[in-house]
Amino acid sequence: MRDNFHDRIRLPSLREKVTSAAAAAHWVRDGMTVGMSGFTRAGDAKVVPLALAERARHEQLKITLMTGASLGNDIDKTLTEAGVLARRIPFQADPALRSAINRGEVMFVDQHLSETVELLRTRQMAPIDVAIIEAIAITETGAIVPTTSVGNSASFAILADKVIVEINLTQSPELEGLHDIFIPKRRPQREPIPIMSVRDRVGTTAIEIPPEKIVAIVITEKADSSSNILPPDAETAQIAGHLVDFFKNEVKQGRLTESLLPLQAGIGTIANAVLAGFIDSPFEHLTMYSEVLQDSTFDLFDAGKLDFASGSSITLSPQKSRDVFANIGRYKDRLVLRPQEVSNHPEVIRRLGIIALNTALEADIYGNVNSTHVLGTHMMNGIGGSGDFARNAYMAIFATKSLAKGGDISSIVPMVSHVDHNEHDVDILVTEVGLADLRGLAPRERARAIIGNCVAEPYREMLRDYVERASRRGGQTPHLLEEAFSWHVRYRDTSSMLLPLEEARLRA
Amino acid sequence: MRDNFHDRIRLPSLREKVTSAAAAAHWVRDGMTVGMSGFTRAGDAKVVPLALAERARHEQLKITLMTGASLGNDIDKTLTEAGVLARRIPFQADPALRSAINRGEVMFVDQHLSETVELLRTRQMAPIDVAIIEAIAITETGAIVPTTSVGNSASFAILADKVIVEINLTQSPELEGLHDIFIPKRRPQREPIPIMSVRDRVGTTAIEIPPEKIVAIVITEKADSSSNILPPDAETAQIAGHLVDFFKNEVKQGRLTESLLPLQAGIGTIANAVLAGFIDSPFEHLTMYSEVLQDSTFDLFDAGKLDFASGSSITLSPQKSRDVFANIGRYKDRLVLRPQEVSNHPEVIRRLGIIALNTALEADIYGNVNSTHVLGTHMMNGIGGSGDFARNAYMAIFATKSLAKGGDISSIVPMVSHVDHNEHDVDILVTEVGLADLRGLAPRERARAIIGNCVAEPYREMLRDYVERASRRGGQTPHLLEEAFSWHVRYRDTSSMLLPLEEARLRA
Repeated sequence: MRDNFHDRIRLPSLREKVTSAAAAAHWVRDGMTVGMSGFTRAGDAKVVPLALAERARHEQLKITLMTGASLGNDIDKTLTEAGVLARRIPFQADPALRSAINRGEVMFVDQHLSETVELLRTRQMAPIDVAIIEAIAITETGAIVPTTSVGNSASFAILADKVIVEINLTQSPELEGLHDIFIPKRRPQREPIPIMSVRDRVGTTAIEIPPEKIVAIVITEKADSSSNILPPDAETAQIAGHLVDFFKNEVKQGRLTESLLPLQAGIGTIANAVLAGFIDSPFEHLTMYSEVLQDSTFDLFDAGKLDFASGSSITLSPQKSRDVFANIGRYKDRLVLRPQEVSNHPEVIRRLGIIALNTALEADIYGNVNSTHVLGTHMMNGIGGSGDFARNAYMAIFATKSLAKGGDISSIVPMVSHVDHNEHDVDILVTEVGLADLRGLAPRERARAIIGNCVAEPYREMLRDYVERASRRGGQTPHLLEEAFSWHVRYRDTSSMLLPLEEARLRA
Repeated sequence: MRDNFHDRIRLPSLREKVTSAAAAAHWVRDGMTVGMSGFTRAGDAKVVPLALAERARHEQLKITLMTGASLGNDIDKTLTEAGVLARRIPFQADPALRSAINRGEVMFVDQHLSETVELLRTRQMAPIDVAIIEAIAITETGAIVPTTSVGNSASFAILADKVIVEINLTQSPELEGLHDIFIPKRRPQREPIPIMSVRDRVGTTAIEIPPEKIVAIVITEKADSSSNILPPDAETAQIAGHLVDFFKNEVKQGRLTESLLPLQAGIGTIANAVLAGFIDSPFEHLTMYSEVLQDSTFDLFDAGKLDFASGSSITLSPQKSRDVFANIGRYKDRLVLRPQEVSNHPEVIRRLGIIALNTALEADIYGNVNSTHVLGTHMMNGIGGSGDFARNAYMAIFATKSLAKGGDISSIVPMVSHVDHNEHDVDILVTEVGLADLRGLAPRERARAIIGNCVAEPYREMLRDYVERASRRGGQTPHLLEEAFSWHVRYRDTSSMLLPLEEARLRA
């Protein structure tokens, strides 16, 4: 253990700060705002949060918890069940927390992931009192070397009064050097972010703060949670196939080269599977400028398809995790992890010309997308970075399977019950049925393309009927307001979006 | 006339291109895509478009018309009535065209104003065949000096095969030097836009193209149309008052200095009136980084409140127009006109930290905003630049009067019938009733702030009742899907959003 301290806490004066999780947790008091590391289950602070939950059994302890994005290790669940969370910002993906949010017990502020630290920096949200950051090491100057994610850790540590560091001995020391910490200057001194290629390194490899802000260091040996995505299936393979065909044609038309443009892929099964589909494609020398790097990133590296990947975290399945982190040296010169403010920055996304691929919970006939709210009211996870990317991308693609719940739900509906991405930001919609290229189309044309290409029967015919009747009343975006949500209401009341007649016909 | 030619067409070889509008119009053929100058009724091509309408009386002539934004001089009306418009991109504000769009006769592609030329440059939309650009002059090298707007003119001229120039003798030659033409490089060579202050000039004062692309020059003497905004009234003064109080407090809290941050104000009566309200404020050394510069910009200059204004066009009332353009030298060193791609660029907006002020057609209890669609279906004007600004701004403010049609419409509804800006992009909502500061709030908290601060009775009570009943069903964003649009349907059917009982009570 002493050796680890020397390697892992290289500024001698900080070694006396090593303490227990319980003792470290006492820096957090009731009513505080706490900023924790953690982005897509990677690099989260793992033991001090649980010590907070433990404390809450004996005393009143309610906090505002800000993170990069979702946490692993049941941290959100444990904190929720202990009643510690008053507010949660800017993303989550935990079933227990989700339920508490939807009961109105935890106030969840669902934010574009690039914006949280801007709001903190300008004090448009309450300031961070304590930051709790997982690290590989603390350097000779007291700088914090993050682990498998950067997320908002750098700005949290810089902006907090006090910083608690969790040194995680299970995280490979070889990750050091992977990170590129760049913090934009305060306005009006702010300058351009000098990233002109996904490869560009523009910052430092560790988070530089005054070492005296580090009030406690806890040594941990808990691993990151693995990703919980599902493997590719027949439908995700079809979605990938439609996209590969689409991009082949873009190359043929001379709009893209065979290295395309830097790819972003949202978290989750569908985006991961679609990206994996590029292994069997004619594209070469691909690059990524994304948030989370999932299994598919490393599959593409191994297939010789991907030249470089920039992200804010690495989140892998158990098998892939063992392969990658045991051999991280093999990938290290082709990887960079950045603060989510930079990985998701509108400036860089627009400059590089990102091809953004994100998942829709549901989409409508005009190409508006709901990424977050079940039946318009109940939160799933949050908008995440999809809005940072879709608004500013070269091309915004949204993918979904056309059906859910064995066909009782059509993912394409007359009107989405919640809008996260409006038609202006949705260029391509793709399902296993097919792909709708919506670029340069007016809403009535978008409806024809989406219904014709992306929807399976009998919903296709039901949507044609809807749009035809709506169009008789005119408008740029024809709708029947009385019926716009009738599919959602029918699903809620009958467990199926199908009309009774259609359902009978289908089941016959 | 010969003298004018020498001043106005300084490259001698181009003088032989001077011709009539009718002759110039013959470069446009059926099925072509035409890019015209014109942004918010300023700097539009004025005579060749009308010659196209004239031609359509005798022959089949349908085009895709792209502009900067809205046109004056009844050009959209005349082209619509002549049946010339097959497609219209990316904005319009003409009643006759609007009707044709809503009848489904003209396909209107409503785009974020910064994006149109990106889509053209990457050939994601059909290319421009002919550009028609109003100019003060053509320089010694054949470069085109725009008039009262830049809009998309530079990229249209650069990307088109053929360029027609309308030299407008009524536009002040003193406008020359006002423009700053900067065109981002193609990816992957693209570099940062080097604007670090609203004052920065980063381009050329004229649009540089190979002179041989100029196929025709037409001399015109038609003036720009004046703006058609209404003067400030009691309610817009109240809205301005709420915002001035809000900003006073931001300064007091140390979040802003008394020069605030660069202001953007959308086109129209409310934004103009609100900005004019800053004349009687304690703020000093204000700056603007906006699209259209309206009367209020020059009122603020004259009041000594405004130091510099960057825009893409100047659109003024008749009186103000006479004052400003007769004395443009007085303002010239405090003004710059940029391409709308630059005035609205996400990179620059985020870097400078714009305070964005735009108008809502309606907003809902959670702070989603409809900027475009009446009753969810019928287009008014288009989203314009509001999405470029609101997503990337330091702070996005939306303003509306709380009531319309003498109280029969509440501008705050349970759910907006069309979403242009979702809750993630709406920081402040303000009506004449008051201001809701939504920063850092979860949806249930947003609803309380909006209903409590922005809504007049009896709608306030009706909304409280809605949200209370909806909340019983739970959710991050409680709604009753069956009732969400009931106010809109009631207005459509009874000409009032009021419940019969409320209406009776109100009229009693």
